[in-house]
Amino acid sequence: MRFSNFPIKTLREAPKDEQALNAKLLIRASFIDKLASGIYSFLPLGLKVLKNIENIVIEEIEKINGIEILMPVLHPKENWEQTGRWETFDALYKIKTKNNSEYALGPTHEEIIVPLAKNLISSYRCLPLYLYQIQTKFRNEPRAKSGILRGREFLMKDLYSFHKDSDELEKYYDKVKIAYKNIFERLNLKTLLTEASGGTFSKLSHEFQVLTKAGEDIIFHCDCGFARNKEIIKDVKRCPNCNNKLKESSGVEVGNIFKLNTKYSDPFKLNFTNEKGEQKQVYMGCFGIGITRIMGTIVEVYNDEKGIIWPETVAPFKAHLIAFGNIISHAEKVYNELKKQNIRVLYDDRKISIGEKLADSDLIGIPYRIIISEKTITQSKVELKKRGEDRVELIKIKKLIYLMKK
Amino acid sequence: MRFSNFPIKTLREAPKDEQALNAKLLIRASFIDKLASGIYSFLPLGLKVLKNIENIVIEEIEKINGIEILMPVLHPKENWEQTGRWETFDALYKIKTKNNSEYALGPTHEEIIVPLAKNLISSYRCLPLYLYQIQTKFRNEPRAKSGILRGREFLMKDLYSFHKDSDELEKYYDKVKIAYKNIFERLNLKTLLTEASGGTFSKLSHEFQVLTKAGEDIIFHCDCGFARNKEIIKDVKRCPNCNNKLKESSGVEVGNIFKLNTKYSDPFKLNFTNEKGEQKQVYMGCFGIGITRIMGTIVEVYNDEKGIIWPETVAPFKAHLIAFGNIISHAEKVYNELKKQNIRVLYDDRKISIGEKLADSDLIGIPYRIIISEKTITQSKVELKKRGEDRVELIKIKKLIYLMKK
Repeated sequence: MRFSNFPIKTLREAPKDEQALNAKLLIRASFIDKLASGIYSFLPLGLKVLKNIENIVIEEIEKINGIEILMPVLHPKENWEQTGRWETFDALYKIKTKNNSEYALGPTHEEIIVPLAKNLISSYRCLPLYLYQIQTKFRNEPRAKSGILRGREFLMKDLYSFHKDSDELEKYYDKVKIAYKNIFERLNLKTLLTEASGGTFSKLSHEFQVLTKAGEDIIFHCDCGFARNKEIIKDVKRCPNCNNKLKESSGVEVGNIFKLNTKYSDPFKLNFTNEKGEQKQVYMGCFGIGITRIMGTIVEVYNDEKGIIWPETVAPFKAHLIAFGNIISHAEKVYNELKKQNIRVLYDDRKISIGEKLADSDLIGIPYRIIISEKTITQSKVELKKRGEDRVELIKIKKLIYLMKK
Repeated sequence: MRFSNFPIKTLREAPKDEQALNAKLLIRASFIDKLASGIYSFLPLGLKVLKNIENIVIEEIEKINGIEILMPVLHPKENWEQTGRWETFDALYKIKTKNNSEYALGPTHEEIIVPLAKNLISSYRCLPLYLYQIQTKFRNEPRAKSGILRGREFLMKDLYSFHKDSDELEKYYDKVKIAYKNIFERLNLKTLLTEASGGTFSKLSHEFQVLTKAGEDIIFHCDCGFARNKEIIKDVKRCPNCNNKLKESSGVEVGNIFKLNTKYSDPFKLNFTNEKGEQKQVYMGCFGIGITRIMGTIVEVYNDEKGIIWPETVAPFKAHLIAFGNIISHAEKVYNELKKQNIRVLYDDRKISIGEKLADSDLIGIPYRIIISEKTITQSKVELKKRGEDRVELIKIKKLIYLMKK
C-alpha cells in the first residue's frame, strides 16, 4: 500500500484528554479516532490490527468446534427480567422507545443465546453444541479512562458451550484453556491463568491476565504459576502451593472462562431428552475474549519512547519501505517485488523529509523496516531492521540489492 | 460439514407471528432466529449467507478504492445536533444514561465520519478519499413486518467519498453506479436504476430497486430502462424518454447512491487547502447497500412452494449430499472426495427417513444436490440436480460412480 493513497495522519503530540498510554499512542499513530469518552472509531490502520486479532481468535476457536453466529445488540427487557439481571447488571445501557418498548444494549449474550439454543436443542443428539460470535458489546462504564482497555463500546468474541452434564462441560473447559493459551501465544501476550470468582453458580472461574501497570485488576501470583485475583483473595500472603511470598501486580483481563452450569438453563428451561427419554437440564460454559482490549493491551506491552512496536502476527503491515532523496525508482522496484511476494508492505512514497518519515515509522511500529538510501546503493547494503534486534531477512538482501542496481 | 455436527433445526410450519415470506422461510429453514419484532439472530446457515454477500460487496468496493474502517454504534447527541438531525431524523433510537449522557444509535454515519475525516484531510493531497464500513445500523421502524427486508437492527455497507470539487464527485458517482451493477449481478439480483429524491442538497439520487411484490416502494418504470420512485413522480403516466405508458411495480431498495455535495461539510467545516493555498469545502458522496436486506430480497425472489433456492454465489454450501439406506459407506467416500476438492458441502448423515431429508433439502435450498441411493449404484447413475434445471456437473459423475463402486 502506498502511504500517499492510505489515510494516515500522525500527531506529534498526544491528545490532552487521554490519560491511557494505549489511547495516546493509537491516536497519535492514526489507528483510532476518539468520538467520545470510551467510544472510538477504528481507522484503516487500526481495523487491520483488529482483523488480524479476530482471525487468530477465530482460527483457534474453530479448532475446538466453535460455530459462528451473530446475535443482536438490542435485547428486549423481558429476556433480562427472566434472569433477574435487568435491575442488577452493572453498567447496562437501557433504551425506552416512543412506543414504550424497552431494550438493553447487549453487554453479554446469555439472555439471548439460551432461548436461541432452546430452538436448536431437543435431544442428546444435538449436544454438545458450541456457538460463538464476534459482536460489539456495550457497558456504561462510570469511568472510561483506560482507552480501548475499557471502552463503553467494544468488540468481544463470546463462545457459549452446551453440554449433557457437568463432566462434559469440565472437559471442554480444559480444552478452551488450551485454545486460549494458543491464542495468547500467537498474539505475543504472556498471560497468567488466574483464579477468579465463579459467581453464585460455580466455585471458580479463570481469567487470562496480562501483567502491566495499565491494568485495573490486582493479581497475587507466584513463580510456581499460581495466580489469584485480589477480588477473591483473603489475607493470603503466601502461595498455597509452595509457600513462597506472593507478588502483587496490576493486570489486564484479556480473556475469561466460566462454568455457568445450569444458571441460565434454569430460568429459560433449557432442557434436552437424554438417551433414556428423560428430560435433563443443559449444562453451559461461557468463554470471552476482548478483541479491542487485546489491541490496547498489546500497545501497553509493546512500545518504547518513540511509539508502538507491533508483534508481527497482528501488525497492520509486515514491512515499512522508506526511500530517500533521488532514488525513488529503486524503491519502486523493491515495492513491486515485495508485492509480488505477497508481503504486506506500507511504502512511504511521500515527498517529505527523511526525519519525518523515520519518526512516523517509529510511531506506527510496523515490525520490519526497509530503508533505501544513497548509502544503501553505494555500499550494496540494505538496512532491514526489526527495532531492538539485529538485522532480519525479510526478502533476500541480495535480491534487493540486485533490484536496486538494475 | 456433517449435518449431525451443524445446528440446523427446520420447522414444518411457518411461525404464526411472521407475515413476510422471507422471514417465514428463513426461520423455517433455520437461517435466522427471531428475538423481537424487526430483530433477528443469524444462525450458522444464515451467517454463511451474510458473509458471502459481504465478501462480494467488499471485493467490488475495494476495486473502486474503498478503504475499510469501523465507526461506533453510540453517537453523541452533539454530533446530531450539529446537523440539526437530532430532532428531525425519523426513527432515531435515543438513549439517556444515568449520568445524563445522550446518544443516538447510529442509523447512518454522516455525523460521525465528517468530523473523523476532518482529522484525516488537510490539503488537496489527501483527496480524493473513499472510506467504507460494514456496521450494524438501528432504526426504530414503527412497523417492522417485512422480516429482514426492514429490520430495526440491520447490517449495512456504507461508503463515503470525499472530493475536491463537484466534477470529481460526479465522476466517482458514475464509477459507483458501475460497481453496484457488478455487485447486484454477482448476487443474481436484477435491479432497476431508479431516480429518487436528492433531498434538499441534490437534484436527484439513485436507488437500486429489485421489483418484487414484497417491496414497500412503488416504482414507475418503462422497458427502455427509465425508472422513477413514486415519491418524486407527479402525474406522469408516460415515459419521458419514449412516451410509452409507464408500468407500476413494488420494489425493494437494495442500494442507494447520493451526492451529498457540501451538506455535511458545511456544519462540520470540513475544508481543505487547494493547490493555490486557498481554503475550499470538501464535496461528499454517500453510497449504501443493505446487507441483511439483500439476503431477504434474494429469498423473496428465489423460492418455490418447497422452500428457498439460493443462487450459487451466496448459498451457504454449494452442494447438499444425501445418502439413503445401507449405502452410507458410499456417501462417506463421496463426501471425502468433495471435501478434497474444496467443494463446500453439507452432508446429511442423519439417521432419518428419505422423505425428511429431501424435505429439508428442498427447504434449505442449497443449489446442487447429490443423491446417493441403491438405485444410483445399480444403475450407475448419480442424481445431481439443480432445482428446476437439467443435470449439472459438479464433480465428474463418472468419478462419483467410480468412488461408489470401489
